[in-house]
Amino acid sequence: MYCYSKFTLAPSATIGGGTVGGGVYELLTRRISSPLACIKKICVRDLQKTRDFTVDPTCTLTDSLDDVLNDETLNCIVEVMGGTGIAKDVVLRALSSGKHVVTANKALIAEHLGEIQKAIGEAEGSPSFAYEAAVCGAIPIINTLQSCYSGDNITSVMGICNGTTNFMLCKMEDGADYGEVLKEAQDLGFAEADPTADVEGHDVRAKISILAKLAYGVTVPITSIPTTGISSITSVDFEYAKSMNCTIKLIGTAARTSEHGEHDGPLTVYVAPKMVPTSHVMGGVGGAGNAVAVTSANMGLAAYTGPGAGRYPTANSIVADVMRIANGNQGPAFPKTASLKLSTDYESSFYIRISISDGLGIIKSVGACAESSGVSISQILQNAINDREAVDFCVTTEIALLSQVKMFVEELKKLSFVKKEVMFMPIMEE
Amino acid sequence: MYCYSKFTLAPSATIGGGTVGGGVYELLTRRISSPLACIKKICVRDLQKTRDFTVDPTCTLTDSLDDVLNDETLNCIVEVMGGTGIAKDVVLRALSSGKHVVTANKALIAEHLGEIQKAIGEAEGSPSFAYEAAVCGAIPIINTLQSCYSGDNITSVMGICNGTTNFMLCKMEDGADYGEVLKEAQDLGFAEADPTADVEGHDVRAKISILAKLAYGVTVPITSIPTTGISSITSVDFEYAKSMNCTIKLIGTAARTSEHGEHDGPLTVYVAPKMVPTSHVMGGVGGAGNAVAVTSANMGLAAYTGPGAGRYPTANSIVADVMRIANGNQGPAFPKTASLKLSTDYESSFYIRISISDGLGIIKSVGACAESSGVSISQILQNAINDREAVDFCVTTEIALLSQVKMFVEELKKLSFVKKEVMFMPIMEE
Repeated sequence: MYCYSKFTLAPSATIGGGTVGGGVYELLTRRISSPLACIKKICVRDLQKTRDFTVDPTCTLTDSLDDVLNDETLNCIVEVMGGTGIAKDVVLRALSSGKHVVTANKALIAEHLGEIQKAIGEAEGSPSFAYEAAVCGAIPIINTLQSCYSGDNITSVMGICNGTTNFMLCKMEDGADYGEVLKEAQDLGFAEADPTADVEGHDVRAKISILAKLAYGVTVPITSIPTTGISSITSVDFEYAKSMNCTIKLIGTAARTSEHGEHDGPLTVYVAPKMVPTSHVMGGVGGAGNAVAVTSANMGLAAYTGPGAGRYPTANSIVADVMRIANGNQGPAFPKTASLKLSTDYESSFYIRISISDGLGIIKSVGACAESSGVSISQILQNAINDREAVDFCVTTEIALLSQVKMFVEELKKLSFVKKEVMFMPIMEE
Repeated sequence: MYCYSKFTLAPSATIGGGTVGGGVYELLTRRISSPLACIKKICVRDLQKTRDFTVDPTCTLTDSLDDVLNDETLNCIVEVMGGTGIAKDVVLRALSSGKHVVTANKALIAEHLGEIQKAIGEAEGSPSFAYEAAVCGAIPIINTLQSCYSGDNITSVMGICNGTTNFMLCKMEDGADYGEVLKEAQDLGFAEADPTADVEGHDVRAKISILAKLAYGVTVPITSIPTTGISSITSVDFEYAKSMNCTIKLIGTAARTSEHGEHDGPLTVYVAPKMVPTSHVMGGVGGAGNAVAVTSANMGLAAYTGPGAGRYPTANSIVADVMRIANGNQGPAFPKTASLKLSTDYESSFYIRISISDGLGIIKSVGACAESSGVSISQILQNAINDREAVDFCVTTEIALLSQVKMFVEELKKLSFVKKEVMFMPIMEE
């Protein structure tokens, strides 16, 4: 099913749809009785389908896109159909005819940012393009990045922006196995039948590319974002995390590297599970919660946490966008434009888990690999050994470049006693 | 020293002052080179005083309020002089002459909200009144409450909005004594020589009254807000907090009570130290940090954390306000107006610490007092007894009204074995 909606701001408006669209309709008609925004038409794929919300007689259901897009009395589209095919046409057509657009579609924005910006720039009457619901559901991170950091220099943005994987990692921390917990997430409706977009980090990748655009003014093609999901994390990693006073979270990061001074180097954007100190605000995000931590020159660390998805959290952000547009307070969609050098070679301290058959001279060999890769080792941890033929131990590093750590890992794999894939992930600073 | 500043938006602007004003000047001239906002005049009390920032030749220092307020080429005042005397005249005069006003002055807003709203309403040209820096420094909670909850029903707003007392409570949790830690805070410049405004909760009271206005549209006179500070908290309370997996935070709360259903009753606004579960996002706020937790029908719990004070965090919020005004995106100062019944009789579960000389029949007597006050006891905790003549034990209650708990406490005080003031504080729900 697809559906999208459109409304007129002052004196009347339309909206509608499925889970989120229904939520938006309910909030705008039942909770806000504003003369500035009301819903005139709801466009759906199947007119016969039973809706879980009541549509007032003042609102028309239609299955014709043209019926909405060509209606000149409507001046705003709320696109909640999803996908990047028809939704893209809808958004671009609406903008080109001067209609405001509100959308929750992060994939569309991440994949077609250039075209959307072009359409906004060329549209008559400067329509607004608003997308608070596209990243972290109800957390007002889009509005915050658009308007609260105008005099600041952001050094990093880090987000737990996928509730499904956060739910899974929390369960794994409590002892559940990856396969078990994926099934549970699917049974609960959190995870899709094909969970790839969630567990392989593609959803986070789209979201961090949007946050990077807002924080740095740079368009980062999603295909250029190094992305690692959570599928190779095991209970051993959680054991080591615990001994490091950490937990593991899937984090989208956009951060300046340090070249000649602090945070003056290329911008790196990546998605990876991270060791996160439990004392860090990101370490405390439970269940399907979301959080974004922004570090900047003026503010230091600020963090925004809340629910990441669901009918009303998402609808709430859409309605806030609609009302900002209705009140004339919606700022530019992408206020910053900058040309920053991009690099995929991010820097961090790292956790590296190595499976070996135990023997003599191991630390020496590992140390030699680190040295030849330019990696400085910080700690070596080893849990109690049950089976000397299959020992998992871990190494943590000082701040290093991803390329150095990859070289280190390649060197490690050449060692005769190293048994399986070597797993590594960045460690978040306190 | 007082200082205040004024600037013209497009083509040029002025600003200036002391710690915060200097920060604003620096950010607007060095970091943002926007044609929309530049600083033309800085008004200070003492022209001879050495400034810790360089003033460009394009900007004039003056010690005359009239020189700024009567200058028609300037269209915005940034009031960073503080106080509620001259600052009030400055703000009202500026508004009445149609100039935008940006201020960090929470006391002024809290004490004179009605007059400020009247001045905004009567001003020619609808100038903006912006005050992001007035509550929780760099945390964009004002903007968020103004524009992100328009389709939502807020059930509670809770804030750690005073860095000084949060710093002190964190030190006390680590074992320091109240007197010691107050002196340390004073030595570090966190606490004033007269620390009353901080430690007795008056600063938080001003801030929560502003947050209550934004969340509920209701003006709550600050003198009607029940306010308890942190001066009666002892190490014993932290011991019990620990055994309850809690910590103690000074919290400003604005919450709907439940009368016939959930959160449908009168609005209660109060300031009190609270037992806060360490697992709650508010429990993890360390040092001089600030945080605001907003619970609402659509979003559930969302929390915003960051630095609460300091030159650049505060200046950052002011500059964000200036740029929102310059870009024409600043919404109404107080978007909600509602008439809600107010009550000082808030509801919560409570922690009650009772000092007694140990003996027989104590629990029975305490139980009888609770019963006659309509309070239901949840837990009774008692740490190891060193001195049977001076035993501190604690009682926690189910959800009760403040008035019931006060009655319970009065009953307790009548008991012969109860030795000192009985101390109580609300417990924050997980």
